[in-house]
Amino acid sequence: MKVRKLTRTDARFERSPGQDGEIYSGNLVDQRDGGPVTIGYGRWLPHQRLKVELVVHDTMIVLEGEVWADTPDGTLHAGPGDIVYMPEGETVTIRTGECETITAYVTYPHWQVAEGGA
Amino acid sequence: MKVRKLTRTDARFERSPGQDGEIYSGNLVDQRDGGPVTIGYGRWLPHQRLKVELVVHDTMIVLEGEVWADTPDGTLHAGPGDIVYMPEGETVTIRTGECETITAYVTYPHWQVAEGGA
Repeated sequence: MKVRKLTRTDARFERSPGQDGEIYSGNLVDQRDGGPVTIGYGRWLPHQRLKVELVVHDTMIVLEGEVWADTPDGTLHAGPGDIVYMPEGETVTIRTGECETITAYVTYPHWQVAEGGA
Repeated sequence: MKVRKLTRTDARFERSPGQDGEIYSGNLVDQRDGGPVTIGYGRWLPHQRLKVELVVHDTMIVLEGEVWADTPDGTLHAGPGDIVYMPEGETVTIRTGECETITAYVTYPHWQVAEGGA
């Protein structure tokens, strides 16, 4: 695979699994590209909430807006430039507040394969 | 490992290997944490240049500033919110321009182990 530039406007956002709210994800690199990681962008409207039981190691970088992550050990808050690292096997609830929030994510291995998605 | 929030001000920046310029990196999650990925922040002063022969899969997210990536197929430009995906085995030269540039990175597997670093 070659070196690639990825940009948010290239992402085709689809509703993320496990919720019927306004949380969308768009992979730009995934299992179809032959590498080990999935890379994409997430778009969260205000006042959304998603409980995730992690089947992959998920690194989420906040680009715009902010999120709260409720974990068994307390609540983490992340704003622009912050990263939430969510290891496989953990359970976390991600929430947005007043802002639309844009994230980038890198998962190892591929989350859609692990979830039986794509 | 637990869910963690990472933030740039927690990074302890050290000069990145392979150059004596003003390019710094600071891991916040790496081989010492027991997971499969390394996560950190990069800080590039203006007018820097680094040729990298990739021994890991490296995902670089531009948070502030901008970079150019010279590849065998041409030059890519990435600004805030853009991602440069650099698969293992590729060679790329990353350059900065007038701006100090802040990046986040996620590597699989651990770059310091692959380079014989840490």
